[in-house]
Amino acid sequence: MTTADARTPASSSDENDAHDENVEGTVAAEAGKSIGWHKAYVEGSRPDLRVPVRQVHLTNGKAVTLYDTSGPYTDESIDTDVRRGLAPLRENWIIARGDTEEYTGRPPRPEDDGIKHTSPRGGLKNLDAVFPGRPRQPRRGRGGQAVTQLAYARRGEITPEMEFIGIRENLDPEVVRAEVAAGRAVIPANVNHPEIEPMIIGKKFLVKVNANIGNSAVTSSIEEEVDKMTWATKWGADTVMDLSTGRNIHTTREWVLRNSPVPIGTVPLYQALEKVDGQAEALTWEIYKDTVIEQAEQGVDYMTVHAGVRLPYVPLTANRKTGIVSRGGSIMAAWCLAHHKESFLYENFEELCEILASYDVTYSLGDGLRPGSIADANDEAQFAELRTLGELNTIAKRHNVQTMIEGPGHVPMHKIKENIDLQQEICEEAPFYTLGPLTTDIAPAYDHITSGIGAAMIGWWGTAMLCYVTPKEHLGLPNRDDVKTGVITYKIAAHAADLAKGHPGAQDWDDALSDARFEFRWEDQFNLALDPVTAREFHDETLPAEPAKTAHFCSMCGPKFCSMKISHDIRREHGGTQEEIAAGMDQKSKEFAAAGNRVYLPIAD
Amino acid sequence: MTTADARTPASSSDENDAHDENVEGTVAAEAGKSIGWHKAYVEGSRPDLRVPVRQVHLTNGKAVTLYDTSGPYTDESIDTDVRRGLAPLRENWIIARGDTEEYTGRPPRPEDDGIKHTSPRGGLKNLDAVFPGRPRQPRRGRGGQAVTQLAYARRGEITPEMEFIGIRENLDPEVVRAEVAAGRAVIPANVNHPEIEPMIIGKKFLVKVNANIGNSAVTSSIEEEVDKMTWATKWGADTVMDLSTGRNIHTTREWVLRNSPVPIGTVPLYQALEKVDGQAEALTWEIYKDTVIEQAEQGVDYMTVHAGVRLPYVPLTANRKTGIVSRGGSIMAAWCLAHHKESFLYENFEELCEILASYDVTYSLGDGLRPGSIADANDEAQFAELRTLGELNTIAKRHNVQTMIEGPGHVPMHKIKENIDLQQEICEEAPFYTLGPLTTDIAPAYDHITSGIGAAMIGWWGTAMLCYVTPKEHLGLPNRDDVKTGVITYKIAAHAADLAKGHPGAQDWDDALSDARFEFRWEDQFNLALDPVTAREFHDETLPAEPAKTAHFCSMCGPKFCSMKISHDIRREHGGTQEEIAAGMDQKSKEFAAAGNRVYLPIAD
Repeated sequence: MTTADARTPASSSDENDAHDENVEGTVAAEAGKSIGWHKAYVEGSRPDLRVPVRQVHLTNGKAVTLYDTSGPYTDESIDTDVRRGLAPLRENWIIARGDTEEYTGRPPRPEDDGIKHTSPRGGLKNLDAVFPGRPRQPRRGRGGQAVTQLAYARRGEITPEMEFIGIRENLDPEVVRAEVAAGRAVIPANVNHPEIEPMIIGKKFLVKVNANIGNSAVTSSIEEEVDKMTWATKWGADTVMDLSTGRNIHTTREWVLRNSPVPIGTVPLYQALEKVDGQAEALTWEIYKDTVIEQAEQGVDYMTVHAGVRLPYVPLTANRKTGIVSRGGSIMAAWCLAHHKESFLYENFEELCEILASYDVTYSLGDGLRPGSIADANDEAQFAELRTLGELNTIAKRHNVQTMIEGPGHVPMHKIKENIDLQQEICEEAPFYTLGPLTTDIAPAYDHITSGIGAAMIGWWGTAMLCYVTPKEHLGLPNRDDVKTGVITYKIAAHAADLAKGHPGAQDWDDALSDARFEFRWEDQFNLALDPVTAREFHDETLPAEPAKTAHFCSMCGPKFCSMKISHDIRREHGGTQEEIAAGMDQKSKEFAAAGNRVYLPIAD
Repeated sequence: MTTADARTPASSSDENDAHDENVEGTVAAEAGKSIGWHKAYVEGSRPDLRVPVRQVHLTNGKAVTLYDTSGPYTDESIDTDVRRGLAPLRENWIIARGDTEEYTGRPPRPEDDGIKHTSPRGGLKNLDAVFPGRPRQPRRGRGGQAVTQLAYARRGEITPEMEFIGIRENLDPEVVRAEVAAGRAVIPANVNHPEIEPMIIGKKFLVKVNANIGNSAVTSSIEEEVDKMTWATKWGADTVMDLSTGRNIHTTREWVLRNSPVPIGTVPLYQALEKVDGQAEALTWEIYKDTVIEQAEQGVDYMTVHAGVRLPYVPLTANRKTGIVSRGGSIMAAWCLAHHKESFLYENFEELCEILASYDVTYSLGDGLRPGSIADANDEAQFAELRTLGELNTIAKRHNVQTMIEGPGHVPMHKIKENIDLQQEICEEAPFYTLGPLTTDIAPAYDHITSGIGAAMIGWWGTAMLCYVTPKEHLGLPNRDDVKTGVITYKIAAHAADLAKGHPGAQDWDDALSDARFEFRWEDQFNLALDPVTAREFHDETLPAEPAKTAHFCSMCGPKFCSMKISHDIRREHGGTQEEIAAGMDQKSKEFAAAGNRVYLPIAD
């Protein structure tokens, strides 16, 4: 992010109010008052390349520009409608490349939604839910060619997606191209998901956050999932994974994709398992491949593939305290054992690469054998699989498929660094995408925190994207509040990592908020906060009155004595402008330092 | 903590219910159901030396013994009464040492409670609130001698307090003595606070957590503060600091001390400032000294003293983004500037040492110049003060005063380690006691998390005690829920640090919970959780039915497919006892490893 005078004039509070009322479901509407920011755009080399930013207007007339993931939903000039879907921002870019073709896609089937022909109720429910947006033909690489950002980058092309990302990350687009070409970063952007605002995942860029949503056999509905997606991106989710496992998987995904401004990831194995009624041994390469094509035609941007769970590794989990905790990993382990054969994902990996390359679906090579407890961290099963992911990464790159690698899991702090270092070495610096890691097992209901600790550390050390964990982890399915708590916690971890990595401009945000704090600009503190709504609520709990919003003290010390007020007095005490004071005090401090900084003599005893 | 067969038979659910009804305000009472644990004691070399533990009874007949800070309040056999106070556990130990004398203490004065003689309302309020417990004479070292655990340890004496701690931490009492003698650990235990259950703060021991309470000019009451103290210790606070700044400071502190099973810390400067109506420049050494004696006679176990804020350092804060954010630090800075004289705390430090030594009050040398923002981390002002704290630490040790050093504050992850490394070097390994540190400034309302991240890391690297931060930090005063959230977050950070440090037995807790998770023992998962109440509530939100508490699946994957269930199948698949399976699988995996762990050949391109 950057601090600068507003590229657009700071809107008056009237404008703000109007804005807040217009924007359905924004933070502002929720808070019921102006929150002093609006959606702005930075234009690139062409009129249809406009990068969204969040412009926060400060009471001192300045503005702070923040990275924005919330999509058109927070733009008052755009009238969004979830039944119509978002505008296909990238469509012209994709068509202009001239390397893809529309074709008659795979016809949807009842079983795609887990519906038996004998189930009218299910059938009806499905019909009710069908996405009403305009019908569309799927698109793929002409002649099955690789239409991936990796292929373009290797050819030296800077695509509109790369330019968009360059502006978004305040970096030269050539850096974007070079990192993608080297396989150190990925741009998940399926040619069938033109609605997304391009983003990048790589260690040279801002650390990203993924939020998981998805209905299950036990609970939840399509509407809820779409709402969870927009809700998650509003609070800062950079990508969303749809892990639905129950009914209406196909239809839910269609609604989510058509309305999502961020890349969508899935685990195709989950839907494939539904198609065989949850009987892992009944899975086949054909069913899996058909599911991957079904999802690629819909526009899924990246897919978790557990091709590293190989027959010989399954026994390595027998001594574990918690065995296999990855759902995909255990499905493949069950299949391998049932047939006593090598994984069909591993055996058919090259063919899978060709499919993904023709849609630009990015691999997220899954860590099916990740540790599920502190006791199992960094064990033989985990690292044996990682070595295989390294082999698969090399193969995927040969097919021009963008690839990231998934990581654990449950890992105590002193064993975290080994994970990122080994992954970077074995996988030729491919982006690491980790779940947490959780740094202890003793706090169910607080695993957003046990894992936020590990996430911040592994992000600092080079992990490119952090998969959030909600308070419900291990206990239940996250509701709306849990999703928000998970996203906010992980945005904290990601930003703390950006600071520690010294990402250009990252600290400007902290500085802007700290300036507001020191100058008692309470409204600016709220508006710059990761969660303005809760910050304001907490302040008002103790000091509700409006005057308190401009008071030169807070509820911690009260009006009688305020520590930061003293600092202002200190400056006055030394007279002159702040610059003069600083200069004068600098001089004094240098004199003092020269004098040895001490009064007591060293004591020998 | 240790895992072992229950020292006491697992109580029947009837006993538990009875227990839960009897114990006022326990977790159980709050949850409204049995939580399957009870208070037990490990006896030492004498009948009056009984170390409290929390015994969790598992459904598999075993029990897990956890460190317990909740005091007599969770012992159904003890009838506690906050108007009477706790039993003086250590009184006989202190008397038996024969080195202290009772004396007629300093008479309480209205101004001790911030009451003007002209204020009948305040006067009445004060009389109402006077602690009704039995009157007591204060005690001090006979002839002003040092009656500190440090003095005893240096003489080679293993006190009952040290034996108590040895049992509590599963370490040889001689290790306790040696660490205290070396100044690497402190046992805050004022001879006038016999009610405490001894605990230790040092890097060789479990990382401890402090919770701050305290009424202010703006809000809160005596009853609330006493309740916050028992509430905080119930969730795991190892010490509590009473930072009251409003009315009734003396009386509030008396109630808190007489009812506290953990050491109590204060910042005497706060009360001294109240005595001069908040006019920093009106402070004198005499008023401060009188306040320290007043508090020492009441039994305060450790005191934060900002003697490192020296006149020459004040100018070093002029260039800072957030100046001085420590209340004590800014009071002393204001005094130094107002008089243009060196700090009276620094000038009179040796006399202060003699006072503290005669009550065994432990120093917590305050970091009055700690950074209040990411921008100010590790700057000249902060480290100049730290060097002075190093000098003062040496002086305090010469007077046999136990000493710990306070640390920041706001520090980005990559600058945290320098803080602990420098402090350990400059302060001869005296225990470090840090506030957070907060790893970013952008998340007001979530600073328990921004700081929990830094706390876990600095704890791993050797910090002995972590001062909690609540969600209300920077915004308002913490309520009961905020105190709980702050303590739980910091217990997570402390335990994550214990794991990373490899503290003996620390992982047993994680292992016990992970075993319960893998074996679908839901009740055991709840009862072993840091917060059993919330863990159970979250589970029941999705799967309320009782059967779900024994179900071999959870709401994440549903009944159709459970990843951990597969792991059990894998074991069955390989037949035999778990040991045989493990052995057999080990063999297979070794063969596989010998074969090179790969199928694809390395690809060169």
